[in-house]
Amino acid sequence: MKHLEEYVISIPDFPEPGIIFRDVTGILQDPDGLQLAVNQLQDFLKDTEFDVVVGPESRGFIFGVPVAYNLKKSFVPVRKKGKLPRKTISESYALEYGSAEIEIHEDAIKPGQKVVIIDDLMATGGTTEAIIRLISRLGGEVVKACFVMELAGLNGREKLKGCPVDSAIIYEGK
Amino acid sequence: MKHLEEYVISIPDFPEPGIIFRDVTGILQDPDGLQLAVNQLQDFLKDTEFDVVVGPESRGFIFGVPVAYNLKKSFVPVRKKGKLPRKTISESYALEYGSAEIEIHEDAIKPGQKVVIIDDLMATGGTTEAIIRLISRLGGEVVKACFVMELAGLNGREKLKGCPVDSAIIYEGK
Repeated sequence: MKHLEEYVISIPDFPEPGIIFRDVTGILQDPDGLQLAVNQLQDFLKDTEFDVVVGPESRGFIFGVPVAYNLKKSFVPVRKKGKLPRKTISESYALEYGSAEIEIHEDAIKPGQKVVIIDDLMATGGTTEAIIRLISRLGGEVVKACFVMELAGLNGREKLKGCPVDSAIIYEGK
Repeated sequence: MKHLEEYVISIPDFPEPGIIFRDVTGILQDPDGLQLAVNQLQDFLKDTEFDVVVGPESRGFIFGVPVAYNLKKSFVPVRKKGKLPRKTISESYALEYGSAEIEIHEDAIKPGQKVVIIDDLMATGGTTEAIIRLISRLGGEVVKACFVMELAGLNGREKLKGCPVDSAIIYEGK
């Protein structure tokens, strides 16, 4: 049986020169890869009590929903501005150039609910930090964040101080 | 226990006047709703032999991945142009005004593989028809398309002649 990292396809100079893009579709397009990734994320949560999985558009949907289904939790999507049809709250976060805005439905998390964030990749941690602010504004508590991959050289964990983080694959670089 | 359709939140006049938007986030944000939806989709597939689940960005990811995981199949994303990092093929389809282009990785489906398409909603069937063309160009065979919701008044099934279709909730209107 292959290790999970062997299913990741690394693409040099995408989307721009000097960046190595870590492509998770290689995990998904092999049934064994998909099993491994979802099982590893669930394993990170075996001692965690929580109510809701939150996943950001769109690769957070890929890994967040099977975990929510298997553990009988709800799944709440965080989406780019303008995609959610009901009343939302929003937060902005910095990109390399400019900023981005994400939204969550106002009624998606009830005060006091414990929340786990799941996404494919933690890079700078900026998206996750913005998601934590959204959840906190709704009265929820983020008890853990789980990723398939983490780019440790970008120091995302420092930005998420106080939030336990687990990643299935840790790349030392950026 | 509630029926699946009771979890759908209907939003009149979104995104434009006269349209009733059927919001699946109401299904997801209740653990029972998510169980019901995924179980129903799997039930549609209990007598179908297949290798791959294909789901289009981004709500197709939500329902396609848990089914692929549970049935130990691979999951292949279809995405909007420019989002997939490796070599792709693409197809265009008509929108009410203009057109859209979707892509699939060239190596994601092997010749002879049997494919099931899963998405949240069948409206005109235009997206699904374009996905069928993509899969067919890679040598795959679409054996079924499953949806959480179908707008029967838009006659999507006529466009997908020859492809068996199952939908968990059928709305008579548009």
